[in-house]
Amino acid sequence: MRILIANVNTTEAITEAIAEQARAVAASGTEIIGLTPWFGAESVEGNFESYLAAIAVMDRVLAYDGPYDAVIQAGYGEHGREGLQELLNVPVVDITDAAASTAMYLGHAYSVVTTLDRTVPLIEDRLRLSGLYDRCASVRASGLAVLELEADPQRAVEAIVEQAERAVRDDKAEVICLGCGGMAGLDEQIRQRTGVPVVDGVSAAVTIAESLVRMGLSTSKVRTYATPRVKKVVGWPMRFGR
Amino acid sequence: MRILIANVNTTEAITEAIAEQARAVAASGTEIIGLTPWFGAESVEGNFESYLAAIAVMDRVLAYDGPYDAVIQAGYGEHGREGLQELLNVPVVDITDAAASTAMYLGHAYSVVTTLDRTVPLIEDRLRLSGLYDRCASVRASGLAVLELEADPQRAVEAIVEQAERAVRDDKAEVICLGCGGMAGLDEQIRQRTGVPVVDGVSAAVTIAESLVRMGLSTSKVRTYATPRVKKVVGWPMRFGR
Amino acid sequence: MRILIANVNTTEAITEAIAEQARAVAASGTEIIGLTPWFGAESVEGNFESYLAAIAVMDRVLAYDGPYDAVIQAGYGEHGREGLQELLNVPVVDITDAAASTAMYLGHAYSVVTTLDRTVPLIEDRLRLSGLYDRCASVRASGLAVLELEADPQRAVEAIVEQAERAVRDDKAEVICLGCGGMAGLDEQIRQRTGVPVVDGVSAAVTIAESLVRMGLSTSKVRTYATPRVKKVVGWPMRFGR
Amino acid sequence: MRILIANVNTTEAITEAIAEQARAVAASGTEIIGLTPWFGAESVEGNFESYLAAIAVMDRVLAYDGPYDAVIQAGYGEHGREGLQELLNVPVVDITDAAASTAMYLGHAYSVVTTLDRTVPLIEDRLRLSGLYDRCASVRASGLAVLELEADPQRAVEAIVEQAERAVRDDKAEVICLGCGGMAGLDEQIRQRTGVPVVDGVSAAVTIAESLVRMGLSTSKVRTYATPRVKKVVGWPMRFGR
Amino acid sequence: MRILIANVNTTEAITEAIAEQARAVAASGTEIIGLTPWFGAESVEGNFESYLAAIAVMDRVLAYDGPYDAVIQAGYGEHGREGLQELLNVPVVDITDAAASTAMYLGHAYSVVTTLDRTVPLIEDRLRLSGLYDRCASVRASGLAVLELEADPQRAVEAIVEQAERAVRDDKAEVICLGCGGMAGLDEQIRQRTGVPVVDGVSAAVTIAESLVRMGLSTSKVRTYATPRVKKVVGWPMRFGR
Amino acid sequence: MRILIANVNTTEAITEAIAEQARAVAASGTEIIGLTPWFGAESVEGNFESYLAAIAVMDRVLAYDGPYDAVIQAGYGEHGREGLQELLNVPVVDITDAAASTAMYLGHAYSVVTTLDRTVPLIEDRLRLSGLYDRCASVRASGLAVLELEADPQRAVEAIVEQAERAVRDDKAEVICLGCGGMAGLDEQIRQRTGVPVVDGVSAAVTIAESLVRMGLSTSKVRTYATPRVKKVVGWPMRFGR
Repeated sequence: MRILIANVNTTEAITEAIAEQARAVAASGTEIIGLTPWFGAESVEGNFESYLAAIAVMDRVLAYDGPYDAVIQAGYGEHGREGLQELLNVPVVDITDAAASTAMYLGHAYSVVTTLDRTVPLIEDRLRLSGLYDRCASVRASGLAVLELEADPQRAVEAIVEQAERAVRDDKAEVICLGCGGMAGLDEQIRQRTGVPVVDGVSAAVTIAESLVRMGLSTSKVRTYATPRVKKVVGWPMRFGR
Repeated sequence: MRILIANVNTTEAITEAIAEQARAVAASGTEIIGLTPWFGAESVEGNFESYLAAIAVMDRVLAYDGPYDAVIQAGYGEHGREGLQELLNVPVVDITDAAASTAMYLGHAYSVVTTLDRTVPLIEDRLRLSGLYDRCASVRASGLAVLELEADPQRAVEAIVEQAERAVRDDKAEVICLGCGGMAGLDEQIRQRTGVPVVDGVSAAVTIAESLVRMGLSTSKVRTYATPRVKKVVGWPMRFGR
Repeated sequence: MRILIANVNTTEAITEAIAEQARAVAASGTEIIGLTPWFGAESVEGNFESYLAAIAVMDRVLAYDGPYDAVIQAGYGEHGREGLQELLNVPVVDITDAAASTAMYLGHAYSVVTTLDRTVPLIEDRLRLSGLYDRCASVRASGLAVLELEADPQRAVEAIVEQAERAVRDDKAEVICLGCGGMAGLDEQIRQRTGVPVVDGVSAAVTIAESLVRMGLSTSKVRTYATPRVKKVVGWPMRFGR
Repeated sequence: MRILIANVNTTEAITEAIAEQARAVAASGTEIIGLTPWFGAESVEGNFESYLAAIAVMDRVLAYDGPYDAVIQAGYGEHGREGLQELLNVPVVDITDAAASTAMYLGHAYSVVTTLDRTVPLIEDRLRLSGLYDRCASVRASGLAVLELEADPQRAVEAIVEQAERAVRDDKAEVICLGCGGMAGLDEQIRQRTGVPVVDGVSAAVTIAESLVRMGLSTSKVRTYATPRVKKVVGWPMRFGR
Repeated sequence: MRILIANVNTTEAITEAIAEQARAVAASGTEIIGLTPWFGAESVEGNFESYLAAIAVMDRVLAYDGPYDAVIQAGYGEHGREGLQELLNVPVVDITDAAASTAMYLGHAYSVVTTLDRTVPLIEDRLRLSGLYDRCASVRASGLAVLELEADPQRAVEAIVEQAERAVRDDKAEVICLGCGGMAGLDEQIRQRTGVPVVDGVSAAVTIAESLVRMGLSTSKVRTYATPRVKKVVGWPMRFGR
Repeated sequence: MRILIANVNTTEAITEAIAEQARAVAASGTEIIGLTPWFGAESVEGNFESYLAAIAVMDRVLAYDGPYDAVIQAGYGEHGREGLQELLNVPVVDITDAAASTAMYLGHAYSVVTTLDRTVPLIEDRLRLSGLYDRCASVRASGLAVLELEADPQRAVEAIVEQAERAVRDDKAEVICLGCGGMAGLDEQIRQRTGVPVVDGVSAAVTIAESLVRMGLSTSKVRTYATPRVKKVVGWPMRFGR
């Protein structure tokens, strides 16, 4: 089985970290292909960058020229998943949803700890639309930007632990979701520090994608995610920068 | 006052119809500038096309090189409004929201009549995120595609009236919103046929944009719609096709 | 165009302040007529007074003997708007709704800062019924009574700013609505102090009423706001005190 | 124990029927006093009439010059209960709430069958504000006006049974609430015809009022229903028509 | 009239205290029979113990060999009420629901003060399913276990008062529900200390059960609570320990 | 890895069918152990039987004397999962939740097709509590009892297809969940007949349980699902019938 995992930003190092995390959890026999968009922002922390990422991810995935069985979109709270679902016949899994649906098997309520405060409403809104918000105790910001997380993992751990502890104590979260693709690999440390299960969205998404493939399930095409109608589309595919 | 009104598809005739409708309701002294995206689909009827439109509208608006006081995004249920709000300092009004918030002053519940069934969930989701869904009785599809509406307005009226009547009778709607930028100009006929107030989103959006400007109000920059952080963004602005 | 703006309490000075605020934002060609109820409380701060105001406003508006194009009810969180909608054929706009629907164009969430704590549940309930509560981050009380606001505007500004700052910081509001007709005119000071857009309900209501009239839209009469049935009504109109 | 039960309309015959129904269920030792408002509409079927009733009921109750232990407001979906709660120290029970909270002990979901379609949204809104709407399967209109119910009870039974059967079959109601004070006394017939429990709001309200008194419980005065502040109120009490 | 009141734990002293509280509020002519389950935990503070109690209560009630008119389940937030409703033809009242529906007549919002933090989600979930959660301001834990409450009532009062005061001040509760069958009898002290109405679920349940019986109402058998179908059931009735 | 899959009824043939279905989807290296409760009903179709099953499943799982890595509860809409989560340290997955969370990756809304109408509210309530109800378009009953499904699979397929088609057409479901453990194995036929993805809860649960184990995740013990406190419990473990 081959799974494409698309980063939402243009930072190759993050793509690599995500793919490495995915490979660590993937079943033997699952090949993980990391994709970096050909255009967009070096980190995605807001609506403009997120909308640009949505298109850049679709563009990059469509440009992949081999066969594959599923696609993971590895951005937390980002736009675009529904577009991929229309364009593809294989299952599409967003790490925001994957972390949340996994967390709900582990406790009565979960919290997300993410990067900057400005991204909190985006994550809340995506969870609301995915129907996975009811058991969300809170979405909390660590205050660190995506690239700061990358640059200084230990500072990241401290900032995440602080918010995770508040989520458990004040918001009554029983599980913590790591709310950024770039946090992949920090889960074990944070679990040790907080004493609650910590869900990494990339890992969760890999297992869900594998499971869907194994069960022969893919996106329903009867309504919302039907293949786009045949029509004139200017400037697509973009292959921008190629 | 100058208001930019951006079509979401690349069909110039629709841009012109929208701008004409906007001018009909605009206050004297308001200049309406219609903008057609430089790339994207000839009609927007699903998530992929909507995400592409989101970026194409932002790109087109940023490329406009004169001063302006407000921007209207003239797509029903489309993505992108939040991105414009981040990028601009002037108010941004989406016609989906404008029709809904206006309808809520006219009756206890409203329904939207739109084009194809596949776009219904998009509209519902956008209204949900905008916080304007509580008094929505239903979103109903006429079954006509955007370009069919354009090509045969009389058939469009019949199809819309049929669904509007069902919305009033079965869903207990008291007001009808025309759920497509391309329906601009049909409101009077449909009101006469159904006996309930009919709200055209383009007209509503013009009055709201004018009002915000007149009151000196614009988008809050403290959190969700703060200006994007300074960072490396590849392939932006696109100016695709120019 | 002539717009009646009805105060909900019997304090003439507040009616005048409200009308003055309305005139400041009204389009040229719009005539604003302030109306003070002939009976009721000198300030409205609770359910009994609010219900009495509902009837007193209806009574006063019906007694107005010239033509008019729209009516604004200038009480925050008060009862009665639906009754006016039944009795009149012109549009009716409540300032509670007007502030909220306007605020929703400016940020992801808004808060209301009002007078006494006892009025908070009334405002929340009115917003809930109007379908405009989903994006309400909080309703906060300044602790000042309506007449104290009138008597000492600078103290009012301080008390409002304190709660507005908490709303932005703790409740994640991005916009503030001034939750009392008597706060008209304080918006600019509070915006400067808090750095977020501040919406005055009276101003917002004027622009909405004008817009509805301009678009030829008025209350739907098919169900909830149908004209009262012809029947025996004792003691109406009241013209109490005349 | 003495309980005042206030009709919301000015039709004495309905007051008498309500009081009779109340006496039929009241405990021995409970005295029921029926009160008819001194002003207002002969039947209440909409917002204007309901707001007028709110004030007329408060006025009439305050004018009652003997001691009493609780007050029942016997209108379905009407305004005013919160005002009475502010003005009085004894418990206040609305029959809309009483029927709903009682029905919830009897089945998983309940429906209300009321008079005219135009009153349906009022009832829904009152239940929503009372926090008793979650298990409401539907509110259905029999199509009969209040005074038609009075004039032809057998026709009323047929019309109510028809809607009750639809509620059970289509809306999955397991209990029916009779949604009009004037339906008092029809419950047994409708239960026999539909096979589900039928709750009469007047009866339910009497038992709840008695229970609150017996437990020594009354309205909380710490916030929403605190006694109105001392202030100048013109035209109150009204004693209109006396 | 005879009412069975079933304790959910196996501690006889609590059964007696509950029955005594029930008798104190019961109408003359109402006989209260306290039942202690024949198996289960000495106190119920979590899901396993609550599920076991559900079965133990059903088993104990079915083993009661005399006639009775209603059953009260005296556990706060416990499972099982729906099972009893299926098995019996007489009304079944849970004290969690009884306290909540009673509190809603007394204030705009209520809070529950219970025992251990771990039981808070159970209570919230039961109120949610009963449709009585909308006006719940909070469920707060006193930190005392059920048997600690029994052992040291004065310490219990202090712990409950502390949380009740926070509920009133911070969560805006206007009424307090005592969230444990074992708190029966403490209501008066806590009302004096907090100044808000305090509802004891056992007392409330007795009055509701009596009222249902008096009105001739019982559980609807058309759907959710229909009598179990005739089928093979191993190990039932249990009569465990007899 | 060893996964216990517990049937909720006492019919061995159903346990075997469930285990067979589980084995069909399980990864190589996963051992599936089917468990049949030692007491309870031969089929579970209501609250009493479901509560009894809850205890019987806990009892049977605790009696299993080998090591295991996860537990699946294979009843649709049944009680008890939270109790298992308290008693065990390994992950617990309910097939109701598993089907729903899986379906949400495949379409915008899903419907459940189950057995008898009386079980519909139980399933709705369980999904509500699990936080997976927002995207549920409907729960529909095929009208067949559990044992009828077993006895006549082809009749079952017809009855399920009929409701699935209505769910897609009328309720706008895009995915169907098979709402009964006994429907295992019918998914492929129903998918072919309806053209939408069909999710079997048993299969979904196996993949989720495997995934949780692979990621080293298990139930949070900080609050709701903490291990029961040490206390006196009479009649436990039951080992009833052994």
